[in-house]
Amino acid sequence: MRIIVDGMGGDRGPGEIVRGCVDAIGEQDVNIIIAGKRDILEGELLKYNFPRERIDIIDADEVISNDEEPTLAIRRKKNSSMVMGMKALAEGTGDGFLSAGSTGALLAGGLFIVKRIKGIERAALTTVYPTTEGVSLLLDAGANIDCKPQYLGQFAIMGSIYSEKVLGVKNPRVGLANIGTEEGKGNALTKESYNLIGDLDINFAGNVEARDLPNGVVDVIVCDGFVGNIILKLTEGMAISIFSLLKDEFSSSLRSKVGALILKQQLRGLKGKLDYREYGGAPLLGVRRPVFKAHGSSDALAIKNAIRQMKAFIDGNVIDIIDRYINDNK
Amino acid sequence: MRIIVDGMGGDRGPGEIVRGCVDAIGEQDVNIIIAGKRDILEGELLKYNFPRERIDIIDADEVISNDEEPTLAIRRKKNSSMVMGMKALAEGTGDGFLSAGSTGALLAGGLFIVKRIKGIERAALTTVYPTTEGVSLLLDAGANIDCKPQYLGQFAIMGSIYSEKVLGVKNPRVGLANIGTEEGKGNALTKESYNLIGDLDINFAGNVEARDLPNGVVDVIVCDGFVGNIILKLTEGMAISIFSLLKDEFSSSLRSKVGALILKQQLRGLKGKLDYREYGGAPLLGVRRPVFKAHGSSDALAIKNAIRQMKAFIDGNVIDIIDRYINDNK
Repeated sequence: MRIIVDGMGGDRGPGEIVRGCVDAIGEQDVNIIIAGKRDILEGELLKYNFPRERIDIIDADEVISNDEEPTLAIRRKKNSSMVMGMKALAEGTGDGFLSAGSTGALLAGGLFIVKRIKGIERAALTTVYPTTEGVSLLLDAGANIDCKPQYLGQFAIMGSIYSEKVLGVKNPRVGLANIGTEEGKGNALTKESYNLIGDLDINFAGNVEARDLPNGVVDVIVCDGFVGNIILKLTEGMAISIFSLLKDEFSSSLRSKVGALILKQQLRGLKGKLDYREYGGAPLLGVRRPVFKAHGSSDALAIKNAIRQMKAFIDGNVIDIIDRYINDNK
Repeated sequence: MRIIVDGMGGDRGPGEIVRGCVDAIGEQDVNIIIAGKRDILEGELLKYNFPRERIDIIDADEVISNDEEPTLAIRRKKNSSMVMGMKALAEGTGDGFLSAGSTGALLAGGLFIVKRIKGIERAALTTVYPTTEGVSLLLDAGANIDCKPQYLGQFAIMGSIYSEKVLGVKNPRVGLANIGTEEGKGNALTKESYNLIGDLDINFAGNVEARDLPNGVVDVIVCDGFVGNIILKLTEGMAISIFSLLKDEFSSSLRSKVGALILKQQLRGLKGKLDYREYGGAPLLGVRRPVFKAHGSSDALAIKNAIRQMKAFIDGNVIDIIDRYINDNK
């Protein structure tokens, strides 16, 4: 198995990304192809001892930055690490593509270069959502802002398959993010989606209220990309704000300072539960070949974990299973 | 000033509600009219010493429950405390109406009995949103699930006026809840609303990401009722989950138990910041007379605070100011 990694994307590339690749081949049965400026990548690789034949380079001398218009960037920067990497993926040079670069460009490249699975209307960015019980899966995380019920139905199918095959959840409970649990609740989109998802051959748990999401009440959360973005960013903002409030409260007196010191380690453990680096990458579900987005601030650990997750995705034949579900059930 | 209170609504009525009314007249320059079953209310009132002429009763022998279809309930239960109270409001017997009962019935009664201000397309349920800096205001909190840009424009106007006149914020910053801060981000609704709100004579701070809402980055958060519900309920769920995680972490060892004991009071202070009871009621903005919703589990303190807030609303002439803004700016 050969995984293509965008060596230039993300806030901490290429240094941390190259290191993550080296760490990955040390632990996992994968080979890596890194796309990026050859001299820079070679320089980074020289820092480590590893079987040199297991990491290859695709020389790509352009970089797509986060502030470029995604579709234009993908069309114009033919020699960028993102475009060259995805082209190699589409041509079969590698078995998957991972990038910590521009999410918009990754989505555009996924659609224009890798292309959608036949019958899939929209590809969904799929991310883990940390809960008190472990993790749920959330899709769409922001690729499709305005959705139709059919899209949400396909997200439900793809999320269910991914949860089972990659995260190892048996008979995953799929919930529709909504404003009440009863059937008939919601806006025009969720009302219609409820009926459509209810007819699918998956374990549909019905509507889920936002209040219950942090409890891990379902394994897969289905929503449009607007609502998905609100849920993910509010969760992050709440975690940051509550920790900052706690810090303020804890430093407000000597007595509580002592308590805070004692609890510091516990708090650190808690923060770990909300650490994106543990969970690796977010797959773009619905395209013909495996495409993963790593967090923009990914370090070596995050990259290594994303590669492990992508390996599970490839081993689980997720794309074939989605393809069969969509095209044999028609 | 005479405020009409639904004595029968809410999980803790009539006992806690009557007590909240008695507490209110002890502290504030208001008289109260309680709507509900006369014998029950008289029985509750007998428990307290207060100037009897300051609390009146409207005898209403029906109650609308939370599980009734709101519009049907308002149409059929003519003798309910909710309908009788709102009719008295519409006829001018009182200066405002407060209920901890069914939100749906309150909204339906607001529209059918109290009626909208001329020119207002939709009335918005408006609630305080606790932040690390104090509180923001959020509307719509769930009255209008599918919205048009014009509704959001009017929510922005009404929220700005309420924030200034009732919460005392000078030149309140009004933000549109969205998935990115840049102009042009968002779904069809928020993109169009951005331009419309930008043209209004208010302090428009542009788009706000969900991540920044808990920091109090704006004074007024404008969104449709679906997104408003997601934001409010996820905020609540996150607070509950993080406190429960903290509790688990803190009881995981003796050392941290000691720390937890010391910090217990600090944590209690923190929870207070997120306590709905401190913030009283949520006004239904856009109707012709003051209508407030109190939290379903309101106790006497919450009712007393809601009455204080309603008094500020009436004293601030909020409805006249909204009316003038809408109808003089046409």
